[in-house]
Amino acid sequence: MNLVIKNIGQLVTVASHGARVKRGSEMRELHIVEHASLLINNGIITQLGAENSFSVPEEFDVIDAEGKVVLPGFVDSHTHAVFAGSRENEFAMRAEGKTYQEIAEAGGGILSTMNATRAATKKELKKLANRRLDAMLRNGTTTVEIKSGYGLSPEAEMKLLEAINELKEEHYVNVAATFLGAHAFPPEFSDWKQEYVDRLCDFMLPHIAERKLATFVDVFCETGYFNLKQTEQILLEAKRLGMIPKLHADQLTAMGAVELGVQQNAVSVDHLEQLNESGIAALKNSSTIATVLPGCSFFLNHPYAPARRLIDEQIPVAIATDFNPGSQMCFSMQMMLTIACTQMHLSPEEAITAATLNGAAALGLSSEIGSIEIGKQADVVLYDVKDYRYIPYHYGTNHVWKIVKNGVVLEF
Amino acid sequence: MNLVIKNIGQLVTVASHGARVKRGSEMRELHIVEHASLLINNGIITQLGAENSFSVPEEFDVIDAEGKVVLPGFVDSHTHAVFAGSRENEFAMRAEGKTYQEIAEAGGGILSTMNATRAATKKELKKLANRRLDAMLRNGTTTVEIKSGYGLSPEAEMKLLEAINELKEEHYVNVAATFLGAHAFPPEFSDWKQEYVDRLCDFMLPHIAERKLATFVDVFCETGYFNLKQTEQILLEAKRLGMIPKLHADQLTAMGAVELGVQQNAVSVDHLEQLNESGIAALKNSSTIATVLPGCSFFLNHPYAPARRLIDEQIPVAIATDFNPGSQMCFSMQMMLTIACTQMHLSPEEAITAATLNGAAALGLSSEIGSIEIGKQADVVLYDVKDYRYIPYHYGTNHVWKIVKNGVVLEF
Repeated sequence: MNLVIKNIGQLVTVASHGARVKRGSEMRELHIVEHASLLINNGIITQLGAENSFSVPEEFDVIDAEGKVVLPGFVDSHTHAVFAGSRENEFAMRAEGKTYQEIAEAGGGILSTMNATRAATKKELKKLANRRLDAMLRNGTTTVEIKSGYGLSPEAEMKLLEAINELKEEHYVNVAATFLGAHAFPPEFSDWKQEYVDRLCDFMLPHIAERKLATFVDVFCETGYFNLKQTEQILLEAKRLGMIPKLHADQLTAMGAVELGVQQNAVSVDHLEQLNESGIAALKNSSTIATVLPGCSFFLNHPYAPARRLIDEQIPVAIATDFNPGSQMCFSMQMMLTIACTQMHLSPEEAITAATLNGAAALGLSSEIGSIEIGKQADVVLYDVKDYRYIPYHYGTNHVWKIVKNGVVLEF
Repeated sequence: MNLVIKNIGQLVTVASHGARVKRGSEMRELHIVEHASLLINNGIITQLGAENSFSVPEEFDVIDAEGKVVLPGFVDSHTHAVFAGSRENEFAMRAEGKTYQEIAEAGGGILSTMNATRAATKKELKKLANRRLDAMLRNGTTTVEIKSGYGLSPEAEMKLLEAINELKEEHYVNVAATFLGAHAFPPEFSDWKQEYVDRLCDFMLPHIAERKLATFVDVFCETGYFNLKQTEQILLEAKRLGMIPKLHADQLTAMGAVELGVQQNAVSVDHLEQLNESGIAALKNSSTIATVLPGCSFFLNHPYAPARRLIDEQIPVAIATDFNPGSQMCFSMQMMLTIACTQMHLSPEEAITAATLNGAAALGLSSEIGSIEIGKQADVVLYDVKDYRYIPYHYGTNHVWKIVKNGVVLEF
């Protein structure tokens, strides 16, 4: 399918000249072309520039953007979007002052979703997740990383990973699969924690690698969850099998998770609410992306990750939703931009770069997606606004007008 | 039109037995009827109760709620929804660390919207506002208070009030009109502030009263804006002419505005981010509603009003959006519930009461709207959720399924 998008008011390309990740002041430069056109050929961006600066073959389909804004599709590089059950009861408990950890200790938390997810069939999980991916796409997200981690048994984790991989084939959204068997200790191993880690390494990881069910491995490296030694054991084994490490790091305590992630060449360390000087120093001398999750801090009323400081320190920052039923029940990257701008002191430009190109970098995909450049996949979103800054500014609503995914025009 | 809504999973009535405002622990009691039906006759609620507990005349139209949740329409009792122009540039400035007051001093702020609003025709203002009211209604708000205050000259304020009053006639949403000529000092009176107050009292107020253009009068009583003496002068004159006082109080400084509002029998004092013990003491011995604006604190990254404390002190609390282009660019009351629960420690039940019945009380309308009770106006909203707590829990999206406004079924 060949397509031209004409009469674009602001074509926010995010990058030019093939930047694969951005840091520091580069994050403020969105490389906007005003009064622009964009040519798409078989799902690939083949030309872009000022209106009438290049010729358009006559047989191309035409979208008239009516002066509106075009952005690259958001890359949501950290989600737990496949799960069953719902935890609005915990939301109410938290409003009354219960902490995330108190709720977990009272039988809520990850294990509550684990029970519902274990009880669900793969078909049910896919049906639920399909609806969520539809909503994410409608809100401008064209690539979604999804973690397992609500199964916590070999059978249930495989069911989750199979669901994620089938969604990858079946849904318009790009899906990246991450194995997070080390999300929590399952109750049947609560007195046998090291046993669980050993089984995860000896049985689950090889099976996943053999079936190519996950590109990434992730661990909730945190006090009361997986310690540094267990985390290292899992990452080393996963790397040996060809998986790429990511890490839940410094969410509740700074215990060296960021430093370990950097040492193990994690593509990203995520959360960072409690990041300290040692973690910042480690990140400065690495190519690891710092992924911050504004919605999680907002939802839990926890401290925010020091994203402003990270950018000022030349560390590449990505923004993701962390969409999950316990600590972040929001799938909207537009909402994440608003929280990042209002609560973390990011400029709209920095937040958009973090949610597109740097998100793609956090998935190792920034040579294919994350910006609007010639040769890249045509994942572009048209917003019913006249200025890209209006998107984070006017929050709590969806500004998406039309979506072009792999060159295909989707209308909702 | 006669209508029955059947098969309601949770009918959240908010009140029974004709409560006109709620305080303290009453705010937690939503009087939910499960597996319920609701009868509407010529726009009025005529019967409600458990499914099959009463007979339904055969000629009634039927909505099958499919087990979903029904709530009273939200009453958004504090907005500035009629304006021209857009201020995403200031949003970006604030993200870079500029304060609200610095932006105002640099020529932004209220006066920026004033310039755009003065330049717009009444027709243009109504067209813009109509679209906003549509969006508010689609998101579950059935009554909206709208303030003038972006005109700040006799002609421009009359244009705004006329627009607001015409919207009241023409739009499905209930509109309550408030005169906020004392929103800021217009530039032409920057050296003649008392002159502006005198003219407002001597010319504008009588004209508005004569034409019945506003039910309420409001003043931005704040350091650098209208002082206590000027505020009192305006409220006294407005009351003499039959208008009901409301007040912008304690937003940036605690300077006695709440105490003055209580003394002048204001129906509500709004904002309260800087409320102190003296203000709390005044509210405790009054019938004035404390209206908090969670979105404004979120958007400006300012402190939140002590809503938890207010409820614990038995002071009736209402929640409104404060929808306006400078300090709160969000029209969604669903979003306000989430901010209230996550940032202000309100329970979902308290937040819903504050956004419905107590919002109606802040407009003197709680005998007609704000709860689902026999004899009240049939402003009811159906949400595509199974539990009312899911509405604040899953944020950043619109859960409304269908709207019944004055008994008329609206579908979008």
